[in-house]
Amino acid sequence: MSSGSAAADVAVVRVEVEQAYDVNVGSGLLHSLLPEVVSQSQVALISDETVMAAHGHGVVEALTAAGKSVLPLVVPPGEASKSLVRYGALLEALAGASLPRDAAVVALGGGVVGDLAGFVAASYLRGVAFYQAPTSLLAMVDASVGGKTGLDLPQGKNLVGAFWQPRAVVADVNALRTLPAHEFRQGTVEAFKHGLLAAPDLLAALGPSWAPDAPSGRLAAVVARNVAIKAAVVAADEREAGVRTHLNLGHTLAHALETVSGHSLAHGDAVAYGLVYAAIVGRRRGYADLVGRTLEFLRWVAPRPLPRADFASLLAFMGRDKKVAAGRLRMVLLEDVGQPVVVADLTSDELAAAWAELEGIA
Amino acid sequence: MSSGSAAADVAVVRVEVEQAYDVNVGSGLLHSLLPEVVSQSQVALISDETVMAAHGHGVVEALTAAGKSVLPLVVPPGEASKSLVRYGALLEALAGASLPRDAAVVALGGGVVGDLAGFVAASYLRGVAFYQAPTSLLAMVDASVGGKTGLDLPQGKNLVGAFWQPRAVVADVNALRTLPAHEFRQGTVEAFKHGLLAAPDLLAALGPSWAPDAPSGRLAAVVARNVAIKAAVVAADEREAGVRTHLNLGHTLAHALETVSGHSLAHGDAVAYGLVYAAIVGRRRGYADLVGRTLEFLRWVAPRPLPRADFASLLAFMGRDKKVAAGRLRMVLLEDVGQPVVVADLTSDELAAAWAELEGIA
Repeated sequence: MSSGSAAADVAVVRVEVEQAYDVNVGSGLLHSLLPEVVSQSQVALISDETVMAAHGHGVVEALTAAGKSVLPLVVPPGEASKSLVRYGALLEALAGASLPRDAAVVALGGGVVGDLAGFVAASYLRGVAFYQAPTSLLAMVDASVGGKTGLDLPQGKNLVGAFWQPRAVVADVNALRTLPAHEFRQGTVEAFKHGLLAAPDLLAALGPSWAPDAPSGRLAAVVARNVAIKAAVVAADEREAGVRTHLNLGHTLAHALETVSGHSLAHGDAVAYGLVYAAIVGRRRGYADLVGRTLEFLRWVAPRPLPRADFASLLAFMGRDKKVAAGRLRMVLLEDVGQPVVVADLTSDELAAAWAELEGIA
Repeated sequence: MSSGSAAADVAVVRVEVEQAYDVNVGSGLLHSLLPEVVSQSQVALISDETVMAAHGHGVVEALTAAGKSVLPLVVPPGEASKSLVRYGALLEALAGASLPRDAAVVALGGGVVGDLAGFVAASYLRGVAFYQAPTSLLAMVDASVGGKTGLDLPQGKNLVGAFWQPRAVVADVNALRTLPAHEFRQGTVEAFKHGLLAAPDLLAALGPSWAPDAPSGRLAAVVARNVAIKAAVVAADEREAGVRTHLNLGHTLAHALETVSGHSLAHGDAVAYGLVYAAIVGRRRGYADLVGRTLEFLRWVAPRPLPRADFASLLAFMGRDKKVAAGRLRMVLLEDVGQPVVVADLTSDELAAAWAELEGIA
């Protein structure tokens, strides 16, 4: 990773929430820009073992060179770290170090680290400054914008958390170079979702040549485009009362699949299935037929096999998800590419038939 | 407790934070008004064993009679319930009951229940509607206004939490009738603090005849006056960036005393000592001499003996408290009654000398 200044190559997307902040996208930013944007002198750097081994040393060095006192805290990689137990241990580590109210928490890693560290930042001393340095494509295009933080409970994913906006996001596309191809594709699923929701041009950009070894400029351009799409939605609806729901396209089934699989199915894989499922439900309602297109993408993603779940348990987990209002199941569908719609009158028969159809083709 | 309508006797104080809400004070309100102000149809009622036994049955009945589905959840009484473990168990109970996003959490009890239930409400599904039904004097005059929620860590009190404003507060002064005299005096300490900060008239009202068997109108008037004082401060400074700090008068030492005593010293007792301590520090700085007045009040409160702590450990706990900015100890002092001032340059010598003085007279 270059340690020289890359300021000239930074794409900056402003997220216009109440406390507006910038998402900075570019090459080499973990060393060049991150120490500049973190203004606090005391920093808790939360990461996972994998990311810490790959990037942590350099980041600690860069922050220290900028005169900051750094407390590195590492959790095991994987969804299991989004637990109350891990959360409590991090809080006690911050309190044990007497980290003051004007300190900062920096999340260095993927979505799990960002969600966990974000909720720590939101709640330690009732809230301290938070920065995100996403290192996975998924975290860059999705988790780093929106201010959602959270933990899982045995009953389901993301059932606990807070809305807590970062002061800034620093997305260094060099971190994508070392990302396993499978993880890169996980992030591509959310990018594809953004394309379906709002940017047909993006769908074309995510073709066969879209890979971790693409030129930095191209990686940064696609990341920045995704960030801009998500930022526009989030700015219009910071607390997810309205249009932000659209971002849940594919996620109703996805969360249920992740839960029944005991989280052995990765989030992106689950969403890829969820996008096909939403297309099937939509086609059954007479909307544009996007089943072929989403299925083609699913094959490119090459996910683990669809969990063999009986529909009743899936439905229970869909119902437990937050995308439920007043006891009725809601789902985001597409009338066509770029035309999301929230449907609130879904019957379990209809959902069961679509599930059977998905099982037949996936 | 009267179950008739007491609407005519309700004192309403508006708290002008971003999501403004009313604090309703009066007699019989748990039965008459609470079911009206809680608009949600599904309610998690969080209380402690003592309060549930005294008032819970009637409240569940009243809410149920109003057509609501009620999930009662009870924790042991006492500060120890403000733990991550208890917090996790409550969250899992809500998730286990599939409580939806448009449900409400109602806190029925004192400050511990309010802080704990408030943080549950702030974080379950990233935030659901919250109502406070304070049953202790302390909770009525202090904890029910301001939106602070929180938990303790082994390292100190209230180190985790969120700002989460209630939709409404219903303070039924009938609940004070069954309050042990000692607990009533705990609440009186915060009222006395409000008097010192902003309302000399209130100091006079808290004389010998101030007791749980005072007429309802008088109880309600004093509670409402306190709520109004705190509401004005909170409205001016919702996130505690400025003047809200004044409310910490007496609390820097108090939190340290509570911690070194293993929380065997009650909060109000600790604050009563803290008020004398602040007066001593202030007198040493040449401010008005309020030592006699605060000491007289301390004797009326009749707290447990001052913990025999060595000053170094006290200082460490004062330093760990949130009232620290950039590594320097800050404290709220009084130049005179009604004239709070934040002092940021306190030396440990000065604080140690004041502690020795307090040990000599308390």
